[in-house]
Amino acid sequence: MIITVLGAGAMGSALAIQASHVSGNDVRLWGTEFDHHVIEELTGTGVHPYLKVAVPKSVRVYPDQEIGVATESVEIAVIAVSSEAVRQVTSNLGHLLTKSKAVMSVAKGLTTSRSGRILTMHQAIEEEFMEAHLPHAPVVSIGGPSIAREVALAVPTSVVYASSAPRAMDRCAAAFESSNYRVSRTSDIVGVEICAVLKNVYAIGIGFCDGISENRGSTMNNTKAALFTSTLSEMKRFVKAAGGAENTVYGLAGIGDLNVTCLGGRNSQFGRLIGSGLSPKDALSEMKAKGLTVEGYSSTEKLFDLATQLEREGNLEVNADLPVLLGICEVLYKGRNPREIVGELI
Amino acid sequence: MIITVLGAGAMGSALAIQASHVSGNDVRLWGTEFDHHVIEELTGTGVHPYLKVAVPKSVRVYPDQEIGVATESVEIAVIAVSSEAVRQVTSNLGHLLTKSKAVMSVAKGLTTSRSGRILTMHQAIEEEFMEAHLPHAPVVSIGGPSIAREVALAVPTSVVYASSAPRAMDRCAAAFESSNYRVSRTSDIVGVEICAVLKNVYAIGIGFCDGISENRGSTMNNTKAALFTSTLSEMKRFVKAAGGAENTVYGLAGIGDLNVTCLGGRNSQFGRLIGSGLSPKDALSEMKAKGLTVEGYSSTEKLFDLATQLEREGNLEVNADLPVLLGICEVLYKGRNPREIVGELI
Repeated sequence: MIITVLGAGAMGSALAIQASHVSGNDVRLWGTEFDHHVIEELTGTGVHPYLKVAVPKSVRVYPDQEIGVATESVEIAVIAVSSEAVRQVTSNLGHLLTKSKAVMSVAKGLTTSRSGRILTMHQAIEEEFMEAHLPHAPVVSIGGPSIAREVALAVPTSVVYASSAPRAMDRCAAAFESSNYRVSRTSDIVGVEICAVLKNVYAIGIGFCDGISENRGSTMNNTKAALFTSTLSEMKRFVKAAGGAENTVYGLAGIGDLNVTCLGGRNSQFGRLIGSGLSPKDALSEMKAKGLTVEGYSSTEKLFDLATQLEREGNLEVNADLPVLLGICEVLYKGRNPREIVGELI
Repeated sequence: MIITVLGAGAMGSALAIQASHVSGNDVRLWGTEFDHHVIEELTGTGVHPYLKVAVPKSVRVYPDQEIGVATESVEIAVIAVSSEAVRQVTSNLGHLLTKSKAVMSVAKGLTTSRSGRILTMHQAIEEEFMEAHLPHAPVVSIGGPSIAREVALAVPTSVVYASSAPRAMDRCAAAFESSNYRVSRTSDIVGVEICAVLKNVYAIGIGFCDGISENRGSTMNNTKAALFTSTLSEMKRFVKAAGGAENTVYGLAGIGDLNVTCLGGRNSQFGRLIGSGLSPKDALSEMKAKGLTVEGYSSTEKLFDLATQLEREGNLEVNADLPVLLGICEVLYKGRNPREIVGELI
């Protein structure tokens, strides 16, 4: 299979490494204009600067300007840029992907459509293809607990691929699956994509507890576990309201990804800083100073917009159904004390 | 409410402290013959030797031989001894509790009935009362994520009380609930009790990953999260086969308690030792040397017996429905390599 990964960030590169372990693949990794230093390192030392893992020589690396060669005869295109860039990349490169058999999406986020509706990533990709009047292959989204560096190191990982097109999904699974990277499948693409966004925001809230507990001088594992539990009930209500399935929340995309996100990562770290007393603004600056972006922070507002949209459509009651999300928003945007909020939420 | 906690271990004492925060309670803490040193410390320094927390003076402390005074006019009796001792304590003290309005059970384990059936704790308590031809109050079991020391320190905690008797349950909730100790209720007592046992065993399995990852030199959070997810599906099948409800597994008793158990604790620690290369026997010795018993280890066999019983009754297929439990058993009892098992299970 000819696979081109568009975007040489941590997750795209990890997937390229994984695909290179599966025999019969021709794997190409293309760097965007923001990936110049990554591509330089890869062509130089061969070690990925974020992953700190050597990329096998069988992965061919292409800089920005070589997009034409990188996508020649591509069968599976993997869009692996940040959620903010997904539309632009699809719109710019869509004409090179019209003959591919599947378009995979790695990005986790929400975006606003031209008509003002909130879209998940696969919907945004489809909209861009349609806008450009281009035929396009089915979109397959990836969910589940998969920290990029662990995927790159072949740590046993189970993910879920989601698509309305079973054959495209099978093709992607066949191209990537190995004994250390197991792929399960679902048709609930909206459920998987919404879980991926929600879990970042909820991980911020669960992270509050770690910061609060530093000040208290005792662990708050009871509190974290209670929040973890109510968060999943809330994810279930949100996903169902958006047309997704309950099973998705209680599977790898929901429980699994929330679990791994809470085991560490930027969103919990950001939450911890706020819990320990920093204002959200200062916490954000501290994260930025370390070169870390906080996905959950930027998606909270869009999630809230989506919730409001679902409420307008009669599928959700924001106040009654999403107390944890509301509480997190109050801390992030209204200066509420995380300690108070956590006390109210358990 | 007159509350007598039978057993001055960590959880019993933490509940006594919690009850003492609720106004109108007369709280008594009775130590068994194995709690002499605890009672001595409590009457001396006032600090609980396991919890390292001061017990309020309003909690009256009684040694072994003062059981009569300790249970005089008791309204809520809390059986807070280890699961192995539950039958004996109930059988010895049952006649002192016949006028109480509720018998609460804290123990997490399984036991074998006189007829050879596997019983959960509330069933064992009821059987002992019946054997002695004693009338008895309804049993209320406690589930959910509640590390004793955190309860004692008033860390925000959410638990679930389970009973077939709503009024007794309400009474117990009223006697214990406060702003930092929230009580939800369910009639699914079997589900709650089975979750409490299962989660210890599964925490051992998830703990394997921490030991394996020490040797690998990289985290295995993807693997842990995948195992966490499949474990919950398996708990669901087990609980349903035993007549419990799916909701219980996806609530505080299931997700919540599994989560908190994996955040640290003896069972994960034991699993980590095995994952790092120790034989189960050596790991057990190392735990014992630290004075730590491993609840999950001792309950694995009984859980397996219960699973076999459920299979005989046509409610479960052990091989198909419980691969994670089987895998853990193979490591604990058949010398299988945890690394292999984990690789197979994801």
